[in-house]
Amino acid sequence: MSDFPPSSDGRPDARPLYAQVESILNARIAAGEWQPGHALPSEPELAQELGVSHGTVRKALDALERRHLIERRQGKGTFVARQTSERARFHFFPIRDLQGRQVEPTSTALSLVTTPATEEERAAMHLPADALLHRVRRLRAKDGVPFMLDETSLPAAVFPDFTVPAGREPMEELYVVYQKRYGVTVVRSEELLSADGASPEVAAVLEMPVGAPVLIMERRTWDAGGRMVERRTSWLNTARHRYVSVME
Amino acid sequence: MSDFPPSSDGRPDARPLYAQVESILNARIAAGEWQPGHALPSEPELAQELGVSHGTVRKALDALERRHLIERRQGKGTFVARQTSERARFHFFPIRDLQGRQVEPTSTALSLVTTPATEEERAAMHLPADALLHRVRRLRAKDGVPFMLDETSLPAAVFPDFTVPAGREPMEELYVVYQKRYGVTVVRSEELLSADGASPEVAAVLEMPVGAPVLIMERRTWDAGGRMVERRTSWLNTARHRYVSVME
Repeated sequence: MSDFPPSSDGRPDARPLYAQVESILNARIAAGEWQPGHALPSEPELAQELGVSHGTVRKALDALERRHLIERRQGKGTFVARQTSERARFHFFPIRDLQGRQVEPTSTALSLVTTPATEEERAAMHLPADALLHRVRRLRAKDGVPFMLDETSLPAAVFPDFTVPAGREPMEELYVVYQKRYGVTVVRSEELLSADGASPEVAAVLEMPVGAPVLIMERRTWDAGGRMVERRTSWLNTARHRYVSVME
Repeated sequence: MSDFPPSSDGRPDARPLYAQVESILNARIAAGEWQPGHALPSEPELAQELGVSHGTVRKALDALERRHLIERRQGKGTFVARQTSERARFHFFPIRDLQGRQVEPTSTALSLVTTPATEEERAAMHLPADALLHRVRRLRAKDGVPFMLDETSLPAAVFPDFTVPAGREPMEELYVVYQKRYGVTVVRSEELLSADGASPEVAAVLEMPVGAPVLIMERRTWDAGGRMVERRTSWLNTARHRYVSVME
Protein backbone atom coordinates (compact mmCIF):
# COMPACT_ATOMS: atom_id res chain seq x y z
CA MET A 1 0.00 0.00 0.00
CA SER A 2 3.02 2.27 -0.29
CA ASP A 3 1.59 4.03 -3.33
CA PHE A 4 -1.64 5.02 -1.61
CA PRO A 5 -2.00 8.80 -1.94
CA PRO A 6 -1.52 10.78 1.30
CA SER A 7 -4.36 13.06 2.43
CA SER A 8 -4.27 16.52 0.89
CA ASP A 9 -2.97 18.30 3.99
CA GLY A 10 -0.21 15.74 4.56
CA ARG A 11 -1.62 14.57 7.89
CA PRO A 12 -2.45 10.91 8.48
CA ASP A 13 -6.03 10.11 7.49
CA ALA A 14 -7.76 8.22 10.32
CA ARG A 15 -10.79 7.11 8.28
CA PRO A 16 -11.19 3.49 7.16
CA LEU A 17 -9.32 2.77 3.95
CA TYR A 18 -12.50 2.24 1.91
CA ALA A 19 -13.74 5.70 2.97
CA GLN A 20 -10.48 7.23 1.75
CA VAL A 21 -10.84 5.44 -1.59
CA GLU A 22 -14.46 6.64 -1.74
CA SER A 23 -13.22 10.24 -1.27
CA ILE A 24 -10.65 9.94 -4.03
CA LEU A 25 -13.14 8.56 -6.54
CA ASN A 26 -15.77 11.08 -5.37
CA ALA A 27 -13.31 13.91 -6.04
CA ARG A 28 -12.74 12.74 -9.63
CA ILE A 29 -16.48 12.82 -10.24
CA ALA A 30 -16.95 16.17 -8.46
CA ALA A 31 -14.09 17.77 -10.45
CA GLY A 32 -15.58 16.58 -13.73
CA GLU A 33 -12.54 14.43 -14.47
CA TRP A 34 -15.05 11.59 -14.75
CA GLN A 35 -18.19 12.97 -16.43
CA PRO A 36 -21.72 11.52 -16.15
CA GLY A 37 -21.87 8.37 -18.29
CA HIS A 38 -18.08 7.81 -18.00
CA ALA A 39 -17.09 4.15 -17.59
CA LEU A 40 -14.96 3.62 -14.48
CA PRO A 41 -11.86 1.41 -14.61
CA SER A 42 -12.49 -2.16 -13.48
CA GLU A 43 -12.22 -3.09 -9.79
CA PRO A 44 -8.85 -4.84 -10.30
CA GLU A 45 -7.51 -1.81 -12.20
CA LEU A 46 -8.63 0.57 -9.46
CA ALA A 47 -7.22 -1.75 -6.77
CA GLN A 48 -3.85 -1.78 -8.52
CA GLU A 49 -3.79 1.97 -9.21
CA LEU A 50 -4.61 2.85 -5.60
CA GLY A 51 -2.60 0.02 -4.01
CA VAL A 52 -5.53 -1.38 -2.04
CA SER A 53 -7.38 -4.71 -2.01
CA HIS A 54 -10.30 -5.60 -4.28
CA GLY A 55 -12.52 -5.75 -1.21
CA THR A 56 -11.65 -2.17 -0.29
CA VAL A 57 -12.42 -0.94 -3.82
CA ARG A 58 -15.71 -2.83 -3.79
CA LYS A 59 -16.70 -1.30 -0.47
CA ALA A 60 -15.89 2.19 -1.77
CA LEU A 61 -17.95 1.55 -4.91
CA ASP A 62 -20.82 0.24 -2.75
CA ALA A 63 -20.79 3.53 -0.86
CA LEU A 64 -20.74 5.61 -4.07
CA GLU A 65 -23.60 3.52 -5.46
CA ARG A 66 -25.69 4.11 -2.32
CA ARG A 67 -25.10 7.85 -2.78
CA HIS A 68 -26.33 7.52 -6.41
CA LEU A 69 -22.99 8.79 -7.77
CA ILE A 70 -22.28 5.64 -9.79
CA GLU A 71 -24.36 2.92 -11.39
CA ARG A 72 -23.41 -0.70 -11.87
CA ARG A 73 -24.85 -2.33 -14.96
CA GLN A 74 -24.87 -6.12 -14.99
CA GLY A 75 -22.19 -7.41 -17.35
CA LYS A 76 -21.37 -3.92 -18.65
CA GLY A 77 -19.38 -2.29 -15.88
CA THR A 78 -19.62 0.72 -13.59
CA PHE A 79 -20.55 4.21 -14.80
CA VAL A 80 -20.78 7.72 -13.38
CA ALA A 81 -24.52 8.18 -12.79
CA ARG A 82 -26.57 10.66 -14.77
CA GLN A 83 -29.11 12.75 -12.88
CA THR A 84 -32.42 11.52 -14.19
CA SER A 85 -35.76 13.32 -14.08
CA GLU A 86 -37.09 10.32 -12.22
CA ARG A 87 -34.50 10.52 -9.44
CA ALA A 88 -34.81 14.34 -9.33
CA ARG A 89 -38.55 13.97 -8.85
CA PHE A 90 -38.63 10.94 -6.62
CA HIS A 91 -35.78 11.84 -4.26
CA PHE A 92 -35.91 15.62 -4.32
CA PHE A 93 -39.61 16.40 -4.76
CA PRO A 94 -41.16 14.96 -1.58
CA ILE A 95 -44.71 16.11 -2.33
CA ARG A 96 -47.50 13.55 -2.32
CA ASP A 97 -51.27 13.58 -2.61
CA LEU A 98 -53.50 13.00 0.43
CA GLN A 99 -53.12 9.24 0.00
CA GLY A 100 -49.31 9.47 -0.05
CA ARG A 101 -49.01 8.89 -3.81
CA GLN A 102 -46.38 10.53 -6.03
CA VAL A 103 -47.58 13.76 -7.71
CA GLU A 104 -46.68 14.83 -11.27
CA PRO A 105 -47.39 18.55 -11.28
CA THR A 106 -46.97 21.12 -14.03
CA SER A 107 -44.38 23.79 -13.30
CA THR A 108 -44.53 27.40 -14.49
CA ALA A 109 -41.57 29.80 -14.27
CA LEU A 110 -42.93 33.08 -12.90
CA SER A 111 -39.68 35.08 -12.96
CA LEU A 112 -35.91 34.94 -13.21
CA VAL A 113 -33.81 37.84 -11.93
CA THR A 114 -30.12 38.14 -11.05
CA THR A 115 -29.34 40.31 -8.02
CA PRO A 116 -26.50 40.73 -5.48
CA ALA A 117 -26.35 38.14 -2.69
CA THR A 118 -27.19 39.49 0.76
CA GLU A 119 -24.55 39.39 3.49
CA GLU A 120 -26.38 36.48 5.11
CA GLU A 121 -26.43 34.56 1.82
CA ARG A 122 -22.74 35.20 1.15
CA ALA A 123 -21.83 33.90 4.60
CA ALA A 124 -24.06 30.81 4.29
CA MET A 125 -22.87 29.90 0.79
CA HIS A 126 -19.22 31.01 1.17
CA LEU A 127 -19.48 33.55 -1.66
CA PRO A 128 -17.23 36.56 -2.37
CA ALA A 129 -18.31 40.16 -1.66
CA ASP A 130 -19.57 40.93 -5.17
CA ALA A 131 -21.42 37.62 -5.71
CA LEU A 132 -24.62 37.58 -7.74
CA LEU A 133 -27.48 35.10 -7.36
CA HIS A 134 -30.06 34.04 -9.90
CA ARG A 135 -33.56 33.97 -8.35
CA VAL A 136 -36.03 31.64 -10.02
CA ARG A 137 -39.69 31.69 -8.94
CA ARG A 138 -41.80 28.74 -10.02
CA LEU A 139 -45.38 27.73 -9.44
CA ARG A 140 -46.51 24.09 -9.37
CA ALA A 141 -50.07 23.15 -10.19
CA LYS A 142 -52.07 19.95 -10.43
CA ASP A 143 -55.14 19.79 -12.68
CA GLY A 144 -54.85 23.55 -13.14
CA VAL A 145 -54.92 24.26 -9.38
CA PRO A 146 -51.73 25.93 -8.02
CA PHE A 147 -50.50 24.36 -4.77
CA MET A 148 -46.80 25.21 -4.33
CA LEU A 149 -44.60 28.25 -4.91
CA ASP A 150 -40.83 28.16 -4.72
CA GLU A 151 -37.98 30.63 -4.96
CA THR A 152 -34.58 29.14 -5.78
CA SER A 153 -31.30 31.07 -5.44
CA LEU A 154 -28.25 29.98 -7.46
CA PRO A 155 -24.73 31.47 -7.49
CA ALA A 156 -24.29 33.13 -10.91
CA ALA A 157 -20.61 32.14 -10.92
CA VAL A 158 -21.56 28.44 -10.75
CA PHE A 159 -24.47 28.75 -13.20
CA PRO A 160 -23.46 31.38 -15.83
CA ASP A 161 -26.07 32.39 -18.42
CA PHE A 162 -28.75 30.51 -16.54
CA THR A 163 -32.13 30.55 -18.25
CA VAL A 164 -35.49 28.90 -17.75
CA PRO A 165 -38.18 28.56 -20.40
CA ALA A 166 -40.87 31.17 -19.79
CA GLY A 167 -44.39 30.02 -19.06
CA ARG A 168 -45.73 26.54 -18.54
CA GLU A 169 -43.31 23.64 -18.84
CA PRO A 170 -42.72 20.52 -19.88
CA MET A 171 -39.47 21.83 -18.38
CA GLU A 172 -36.67 19.53 -17.29
CA GLU A 173 -36.15 19.17 -13.57
CA LEU A 174 -33.63 21.81 -12.42
CA TYR A 175 -31.24 19.17 -11.03
CA VAL A 176 -31.06 17.53 -14.45
CA VAL A 177 -30.25 20.93 -16.00
CA TYR A 178 -27.56 21.59 -13.35
CA GLN A 179 -25.74 18.43 -14.36
CA LYS A 180 -26.28 18.51 -18.13
CA ARG A 181 -25.42 22.18 -18.64
CA TYR A 182 -23.08 22.90 -15.73
CA GLY A 183 -21.59 19.56 -14.65
CA VAL A 184 -23.05 20.10 -11.15
CA THR A 185 -24.22 16.83 -9.58
CA VAL A 186 -26.65 17.31 -6.70
CA VAL A 187 -26.22 14.61 -4.05
CA ARG A 188 -27.89 15.96 -0.92
CA SER A 189 -30.60 18.37 0.19
CA GLU A 190 -31.68 19.29 3.70
CA GLU A 191 -34.94 21.03 4.50
CA LEU A 192 -36.19 22.75 7.64
CA LEU A 193 -39.98 22.81 7.78
CA SER A 194 -42.37 25.10 9.59
CA ALA A 195 -45.99 26.25 9.49
CA ASP A 196 -46.97 29.90 9.12
CA GLY A 197 -49.79 32.09 7.85
CA ALA A 198 -49.69 32.86 4.11
CA SER A 199 -48.39 36.36 3.33
CA PRO A 200 -50.53 38.44 0.94
CA GLU A 201 -48.12 37.62 -1.90
CA VAL A 202 -48.05 33.85 -1.26
CA ALA A 203 -51.80 33.80 -0.66
CA ALA A 204 -52.43 35.53 -4.02
CA VAL A 205 -50.29 33.09 -5.99
CA LEU A 206 -51.58 29.97 -4.19
CA GLU A 207 -55.17 31.25 -4.32
CA MET A 208 -55.76 30.91 -0.58
CA PRO A 209 -56.83 33.39 2.12
CA VAL A 210 -54.16 35.70 3.60
CA GLY A 211 -53.01 34.23 6.92
CA ALA A 212 -54.23 30.70 6.09
CA PRO A 213 -51.79 28.00 7.33
CA VAL A 214 -49.10 27.14 4.79
CA LEU A 215 -46.17 24.68 5.03
CA ILE A 216 -42.80 26.39 4.51
CA MET A 217 -39.68 24.48 3.39
CA GLU A 218 -36.21 26.01 3.61
CA ARG A 219 -33.84 23.92 1.53
CA ARG A 220 -30.06 23.84 1.19
CA THR A 221 -28.50 21.66 -1.51
CA TRP A 222 -24.96 20.34 -1.95
CA ASP A 223 -23.12 18.90 -4.94
CA ALA A 224 -20.79 15.89 -5.05
CA GLY A 225 -17.86 18.13 -4.05
CA GLY A 226 -19.59 19.23 -0.82
CA ARG A 227 -20.29 22.73 -2.16
CA MET A 228 -23.62 24.41 -1.38
CA VAL A 229 -25.02 25.08 -4.86
CA GLU A 230 -28.58 26.14 -4.12
CA ARG A 231 -30.88 27.61 -1.50
CA ARG A 232 -34.61 27.43 -1.90
CA THR A 233 -37.75 28.43 -0.03
CA SER A 234 -41.05 26.74 -0.90
CA TRP A 235 -44.59 27.38 0.25
CA LEU A 236 -47.05 24.46 0.12
CA ASN A 237 -50.83 24.70 0.40
CA THR A 238 -51.66 21.44 2.19
CA ALA A 239 -55.38 21.44 1.39
CA ARG A 240 -54.76 18.71 -1.20
CA HIS A 241 -51.08 17.79 -0.76
CA ARG A 242 -48.69 16.45 1.83
CA TYR A 243 -44.94 16.54 2.38
CA VAL A 244 -43.52 13.04 2.88
CA SER A 245 -40.56 12.18 5.08
CA VAL A 246 -39.12 8.69 5.46
CA MET A 247 -36.98 7.63 8.45
CA GLU A 248 -35.05 4.35 8.49
CA MET B 1 -26.39 -24.10 -4.25
CA SER B 2 -28.76 -27.07 -4.17
CA ASP B 3 -29.40 -26.61 -0.46
CA PHE B 4 -30.55 -23.00 -0.81
CA PRO B 5 -34.03 -22.77 0.75
CA PRO B 6 -36.89 -22.30 -1.75
CA SER B 7 -39.16 -19.29 -1.29
CA SER B 8 -42.05 -19.87 1.08
CA ASP B 9 -44.71 -20.15 -1.61
CA GLY B 10 -42.64 -22.57 -3.66
CA ARG B 11 -42.35 -20.25 -6.66
CA PRO B 12 -38.94 -19.26 -7.97
CA ASP B 13 -37.62 -16.11 -6.27
CA ALA B 14 -36.47 -13.60 -8.94
CA ARG B 15 -34.59 -11.33 -6.53
CA PRO B 16 -30.77 -11.27 -6.45
CA LEU B 17 -29.35 -14.01 -4.26
CA TYR B 18 -27.99 -11.59 -1.63
CA ALA B 19 -31.51 -10.08 -1.25
CA GLN B 20 -32.91 -13.55 -0.62
CA VAL B 21 -30.23 -14.19 2.01
CA GLU B 22 -31.02 -10.78 3.54
CA SER B 23 -34.71 -11.81 3.82
CA ILE B 24 -33.87 -15.10 5.50
CA LEU B 25 -31.63 -13.45 8.10
CA ASN B 26 -34.13 -10.59 8.53
CA ALA B 27 -36.87 -13.13 9.27
CA ARG B 28 -34.78 -14.74 12.03
CA ILE B 29 -34.37 -11.33 13.67
CA ALA B 30 -38.03 -10.35 13.17
CA ALA B 31 -39.24 -13.66 14.64
CA GLY B 32 -37.05 -13.20 17.70
CA GLU B 33 -35.08 -16.35 16.88
CA TRP B 34 -32.07 -14.06 17.02
CA GLN B 35 -32.62 -11.55 19.84
CA PRO B 36 -31.01 -8.09 20.14
CA GLY B 37 -27.40 -8.58 21.22
CA HIS B 38 -27.27 -12.11 19.73
CA ALA B 39 -23.97 -12.96 18.00
CA LEU B 40 -24.52 -14.08 14.40
CA PRO B 41 -22.65 -17.10 13.00
CA SER B 42 -19.49 -16.15 11.10
CA GLU B 43 -19.66 -15.33 7.39
CA PRO B 44 -18.16 -18.71 6.38
CA GLU B 45 -20.63 -20.53 8.64
CA LEU B 46 -23.58 -18.64 7.13
CA ALA B 47 -22.25 -19.20 3.61
CA GLN B 48 -22.04 -22.93 4.24
CA GLU B 49 -25.41 -23.19 5.96
CA LEU B 50 -27.20 -21.34 3.14
CA GLY B 51 -25.13 -22.79 0.30
CA VAL B 52 -24.07 -19.40 -1.09
CA SER B 53 -20.72 -17.65 -1.55
CA HIS B 54 -18.96 -15.53 1.10
CA GLY B 55 -19.50 -12.49 -1.15
CA THR B 56 -23.27 -13.06 -1.17
CA VAL B 57 -23.36 -13.36 2.63
CA ARG B 58 -21.25 -10.22 2.98
CA LYS B 59 -23.57 -8.26 0.68
CA ALA B 60 -26.62 -9.44 2.65
CA LEU B 61 -24.94 -8.40 5.93
CA ASP B 62 -24.03 -5.01 4.38
CA ALA B 63 -27.71 -4.47 3.59
CA LEU B 64 -28.81 -5.47 7.13
CA GLU B 65 -26.17 -3.16 8.59
CA ARG B 66 -27.41 -0.23 6.51
CA ARG B 67 -30.91 -0.91 7.85
CA HIS B 68 -29.48 -0.82 11.41
CA LEU B 69 -30.61 -4.40 12.07
CA ILE B 70 -27.12 -5.69 12.80
CA GLU B 71 -23.87 -4.19 14.05
CA ARG B 72 -20.37 -5.26 13.15
CA ARG B 73 -17.80 -4.80 15.88
CA GLN B 74 -14.18 -4.80 14.79
CA GLY B 75 -12.52 -8.06 15.83
CA LYS B 76 -15.58 -9.22 17.79
CA GLY B 77 -18.11 -10.29 15.20
CA THR B 78 -21.59 -9.37 14.06
CA PHE B 79 -24.50 -8.83 16.44
CA VAL B 80 -28.22 -8.17 16.24
CA ALA B 81 -28.48 -4.43 16.89
CA ARG B 82 -30.11 -3.04 20.00
CA GLN B 83 -32.40 -0.04 19.61
CA THR B 84 -30.52 2.71 21.38
CA SER B 85 -31.94 5.94 22.76
CA GLU B 86 -29.48 7.75 20.55
CA ARG B 87 -30.72 6.11 17.34
CA ALA B 88 -34.35 6.46 18.45
CA ARG B 89 -33.79 10.17 18.98
CA PHE B 90 -31.52 10.90 16.05
CA HIS B 91 -33.33 8.90 13.37
CA PHE B 92 -36.90 9.03 14.60
CA PHE B 93 -37.15 12.43 16.29
CA PRO B 94 -36.55 14.86 13.40
CA ILE B 95 -37.11 18.02 15.44
CA ARG B 96 -34.40 20.69 15.46
CA ASP B 97 -34.01 24.20 16.81
CA LEU B 98 -34.13 27.23 14.50
CA GLN B 99 -30.45 26.73 13.65
CA GLY B 100 -31.00 23.09 12.68
CA ARG B 101 -29.41 21.66 15.85
CA GLN B 102 -30.58 18.49 17.62
CA VAL B 103 -33.08 19.16 20.46
CA GLU B 104 -33.17 17.25 23.77
CA PRO B 105 -36.66 17.91 25.12
CA THR B 106 -38.38 16.70 28.25
CA SER B 107 -41.38 14.45 27.65
CA THR B 108 -44.49 14.24 29.83
CA ALA B 109 -47.10 11.51 29.52
CA LEU B 110 -50.53 13.21 29.64
CA SER B 111 -52.69 10.12 29.34
CA LEU B 112 -52.85 6.45 28.45
CA VAL B 113 -56.17 4.83 27.54
CA THR B 114 -57.05 1.57 25.80
CA THR B 115 -60.05 1.74 23.45
CA PRO B 116 -61.43 -0.19 20.45
CA ALA B 117 -59.75 0.50 17.08
CA THR B 118 -61.93 2.34 14.58
CA GLU B 119 -62.85 0.65 11.32
CA GLU B 120 -60.34 2.87 9.49
CA GLU B 121 -57.59 1.89 11.96
CA ARG B 122 -58.36 -1.81 11.70
CA ALA B 123 -58.16 -1.64 7.89
CA ALA B 124 -54.92 0.38 7.90
CA MET B 125 -53.17 -1.83 10.47
CA HIS B 126 -54.70 -5.18 9.41
CA LEU B 127 -56.29 -5.76 12.82
CA PRO B 128 -59.18 -8.12 13.75
CA ALA B 129 -62.70 -6.83 14.47
CA ASP B 130 -62.33 -6.71 18.26
CA ALA B 131 -58.85 -5.11 18.29
CA LEU B 132 -57.95 -2.67 21.05
CA LEU B 133 -55.42 0.16 20.77
CA HIS B 134 -53.45 1.86 23.51
CA ARG B 135 -53.49 5.65 23.06
CA VAL B 136 -50.58 7.51 24.61
CA ARG B 137 -50.57 11.31 24.68
CA ARG B 138 -47.28 12.99 25.38
CA LEU B 139 -46.14 16.58 25.59
CA ARG B 140 -42.58 17.66 24.75
CA ALA B 141 -41.11 20.81 26.23
CA LYS B 142 -37.80 22.65 26.07
CA ASP B 143 -36.74 24.88 28.93
CA GLY B 144 -40.22 24.47 30.39
CA VAL B 145 -41.95 25.68 27.21
CA PRO B 146 -44.21 23.06 25.54
CA PHE B 147 -43.75 22.86 21.77
CA MET B 148 -45.04 19.47 20.59
CA LEU B 149 -47.97 17.20 21.38
CA ASP B 150 -48.28 13.67 20.11
CA GLU B 151 -50.84 10.88 20.25
CA THR B 152 -49.51 7.38 19.59
CA SER B 153 -51.75 4.37 18.90
CA LEU B 154 -50.43 0.85 19.56
CA PRO B 155 -52.17 -2.51 19.03
CA ALA B 156 -52.83 -3.94 22.50
CA ALA B 157 -52.23 -7.47 21.16
CA VAL B 158 -48.66 -6.54 20.19
CA PHE B 159 -48.00 -4.51 23.35
CA PRO B 160 -49.88 -6.23 26.21
CA ASP B 161 -49.86 -4.50 29.62
CA PHE B 162 -48.34 -1.39 28.13
CA THR B 163 -47.59 1.31 30.68
CA VAL B 164 -45.85 4.66 30.70
CA PRO B 165 -44.55 6.41 33.79
CA ALA B 166 -46.97 9.19 34.76
CA GLY B 167 -45.73 12.75 34.71
CA ARG B 168 -42.42 14.18 33.64
CA GLU B 169 -39.82 11.73 32.34
CA PRO B 170 -36.62 10.83 32.23
CA MET B 171 -38.58 8.18 30.30
CA GLU B 172 -36.93 5.84 27.83
CA GLU B 173 -37.67 6.49 24.17
CA LEU B 174 -40.75 4.45 23.18
CA TYR B 175 -38.85 2.57 20.44
CA VAL B 176 -36.32 1.36 23.01
CA VAL B 177 -39.21 0.16 25.20
CA TYR B 178 -40.84 -1.62 22.23
CA GLN B 179 -37.71 -3.65 21.68
CA LYS B 180 -36.69 -4.29 25.29
CA ARG B 181 -40.12 -5.24 26.60
CA TYR B 182 -41.85 -6.61 23.50
CA GLY B 183 -39.09 -7.70 21.10
CA VAL B 184 -40.46 -5.28 18.48
CA THR B 185 -37.67 -3.68 16.43
CA VAL B 186 -38.70 -0.50 14.64
CA VAL B 187 -36.90 -0.13 11.30
CA ARG B 188 -38.92 2.41 9.32
CA SER B 189 -41.28 5.33 9.79
CA GLU B 190 -43.05 7.41 7.18
CA GLU B 191 -44.63 10.78 7.90
CA LEU B 192 -47.07 12.90 5.91
CA LEU B 193 -46.82 16.57 6.88
CA SER B 194 -49.30 19.41 6.59
CA ALA B 195 -50.02 22.84 8.06
CA ASP B 196 -53.29 23.68 9.77
CA GLY B 197 -54.76 26.00 12.37
CA ALA B 198 -54.46 24.79 15.98
CA SER B 199 -57.69 23.32 17.38
CA PRO B 200 -58.82 24.65 20.78
CA GLU B 201 -57.47 21.50 22.44
CA VAL B 202 -54.05 21.61 20.70
CA ALA B 203 -53.82 25.37 21.23
CA ALA B 204 -54.45 24.98 24.97
CA VAL B 205 -51.77 22.32 25.44
CA LEU B 206 -49.19 24.08 23.23
CA GLU B 207 -50.03 27.48 24.77
CA MET B 208 -50.71 29.16 21.41
CA PRO B 209 -53.76 31.00 20.02
CA VAL B 210 -56.61 28.91 18.58
CA GLY B 211 -56.23 28.82 14.78
CA ALA B 212 -52.52 29.71 14.84
CA PRO B 213 -50.54 27.73 12.22
CA VAL B 214 -49.24 24.39 13.50
CA LEU B 215 -47.24 21.67 11.71
CA ILE B 216 -49.04 18.30 11.73
CA MET B 217 -47.19 15.00 11.29
CA GLU B 218 -49.02 11.75 10.58
CA ARG B 219 -46.66 8.84 11.16
CA ARG B 220 -46.83 5.13 10.35
CA THR B 221 -44.15 2.83 11.73
CA TRP B 222 -43.09 -0.69 10.71
CA ASP B 223 -41.05 -3.34 12.50
CA ALA B 224 -38.37 -5.62 11.05
CA GLY B 225 -41.03 -8.10 9.96
CA GLY B 226 -42.83 -5.48 7.83
CA ARG B 227 -45.75 -5.21 10.29
CA MET B 228 -47.27 -1.78 11.05
CA VAL B 229 -46.79 -1.49 14.81
CA GLU B 230 -47.67 2.14 15.47
CA ARG B 231 -49.59 5.12 14.17
CA ARG B 232 -48.97 8.57 15.55
CA THR B 233 -50.17 12.12 15.03
CA SER B 234 -48.00 15.01 16.26
CA TRP B 235 -48.61 18.74 16.42
CA LEU B 236 -45.56 21.03 16.37
CA ASN B 237 -45.50 24.72 17.27
CA THR B 238 -42.83 26.03 14.89
CA ALA B 239 -42.24 29.34 16.66
CA ARG B 240 -38.96 27.95 18.05
CA HIS B 241 -38.57 24.59 16.33
CA ARG B 242 -38.24 23.09 12.88
CA TYR B 243 -38.84 19.66 11.35
CA VAL B 244 -35.77 18.46 9.43
CA SER B 245 -35.86 16.29 6.32
CA VAL B 246 -32.77 15.01 4.51
CA MET B 247 -32.83 13.85 0.88
CA GLU B 248 -29.91 12.01 -0.68
